[in-house]
Amino acid sequence: MSMSLDPVILVNGILTDSLPVTDRGLAYGDGLFETVQLQDGRPLLLEAHFERLLQGCRRLGIASEGLVARLRDDLSRLASMQDLAAWGVLKITVTRGAGGRGYLPLPDLVPTRILMLSRAPVHADAPAVNGVRVRLCDLRLALSPRLAGIKHLNRLEQVLARAEWTDPAIREGLLLDQEGWLVEGTMSNLFWVCAGRIFTPQLDRSGVSGIVRNRLLALASEEGLEVEEGRYPLSHLEQADEAWLCNSLIDIWPVTALAERCWPVGPVTRRLQQLLTEDYRAC
Amino acid sequence: MSMSLDPVILVNGILTDSLPVTDRGLAYGDGLFETVQLQDGRPLLLEAHFERLLQGCRRLGIASEGLVARLRDDLSRLASMQDLAAWGVLKITVTRGAGGRGYLPLPDLVPTRILMLSRAPVHADAPAVNGVRVRLCDLRLALSPRLAGIKHLNRLEQVLARAEWTDPAIREGLLLDQEGWLVEGTMSNLFWVCAGRIFTPQLDRSGVSGIVRNRLLALASEEGLEVEEGRYPLSHLEQADEAWLCNSLIDIWPVTALAERCWPVGPVTRRLQQLLTEDYRAC
Repeated sequence: MSMSLDPVILVNGILTDSLPVTDRGLAYGDGLFETVQLQDGRPLLLEAHFERLLQGCRRLGIASEGLVARLRDDLSRLASMQDLAAWGVLKITVTRGAGGRGYLPLPDLVPTRILMLSRAPVHADAPAVNGVRVRLCDLRLALSPRLAGIKHLNRLEQVLARAEWTDPAIREGLLLDQEGWLVEGTMSNLFWVCAGRIFTPQLDRSGVSGIVRNRLLALASEEGLEVEEGRYPLSHLEQADEAWLCNSLIDIWPVTALAERCWPVGPVTRRLQQLLTEDYRAC
Repeated sequence: MSMSLDPVILVNGILTDSLPVTDRGLAYGDGLFETVQLQDGRPLLLEAHFERLLQGCRRLGIASEGLVARLRDDLSRLASMQDLAAWGVLKITVTRGAGGRGYLPLPDLVPTRILMLSRAPVHADAPAVNGVRVRLCDLRLALSPRLAGIKHLNRLEQVLARAEWTDPAIREGLLLDQEGWLVEGTMSNLFWVCAGRIFTPQLDRSGVSGIVRNRLLALASEEGLEVEEGRYPLSHLEQADEAWLCNSLIDIWPVTALAERCWPVGPVTRRLQQLLTEDYRAC
């Protein structure tokens, strides 16, 4: 991975690299974020990212009237200042705003909008082609139906899970929930194929409902491949014929090893990689 | 001395009201905080706050060598700039630091230290004397043993729970965990007395191990009053003879009403208020 240049940041439409200390995003993680891939300067699946952001605002009670229009203006401003094709990642963060006292979210708070451009991580080992080794994390995700699915700023579980290993050959850690059901990776969603059927964990009690995950559900369905969402134990994945991870930056990474279990890169994985690439071209 | 009502903030020892956008405290809630009461300019139970902060650093793997010494220097600097007796609250926030990419907490990150002075909230209705009405929140706290007890920055559950009511006559909301056991209030810990014995929830799976809570455990013990920590249903509290809330700013508030259940302010509550007041004088 390389990160050569400092990110370019707009806060509420203004070029800056700082934020008021009293922002509730810092105080309580009281906000949401989206990580958008820029492909030749084009933000991929942007409307789906905005939709999830709005859903998150509704769930958290963050004022969202006019928010997307303002984010579009911010993005235009960024594009007028920077050649977006020179950047790989657009991170959008929205917090409930600055000020207020204590946990009570006052209704007159104005949400903070943060857009940050940074370079795409470079993976010299071509994990999308060759697949990746993953591990099982010790940390188990809490069950929290009120926060499940949305991409909020309370990410200590992911930080602690990602801190469990430093071996760069291991590219992701899989997470079970408190009851032992498979949920996702620390930064990705998980799919696998078993006897010709595709499976992925349901995310109603923990996990993040990923934009690429949801796009894959639609693409698979259009292809006549139904995906079964449910609660599955690790053993179900271990019996799979193929498996993959996905998120908005990595697209699809085949999983080729988990502890002693090894997989070839499978045909369904390759087919969905192809469909996603075509989908990106069309969107 | 500033007469402004705006908080006075030191970030890493420098007077400012802003923070780098790339701070992991904002990105992931990757940090901790302490809320310290200033009594006539004296920070109450400061050593216990530092101890909990260090415990939190160890739990999260945040570098803590020399941290408390630097926080003491920051506090001295604040005291040289401001008459602390004019302020009521010192909030100390420590994050893992700025920068890095993704969830992986790089070991060379330098923690961010934030000290903020603000006015104490004024409660015209003297809740410590007259007691408060509380409600039961709908939100149930997730079970998260890895995060339980410490005062980390992932506080969306508290924000959502506090958003459940706006009636200013209700001063606190009580929270059950996902399994239905009593945990705490949104901003306070909870005690009650039943047939001459004192009870409080154990906080090994959710909740914040409050500084005043832990001081009360010690003070009660010195008084020959043992406190039983365990898992209790709401019905156990409803059968209580008296109950109270505590935190570092409110000290002890007697609970006088929960839905239809009403309590007088009880003798154990009053005794512990007295012991805490004396303890503050001595510390």
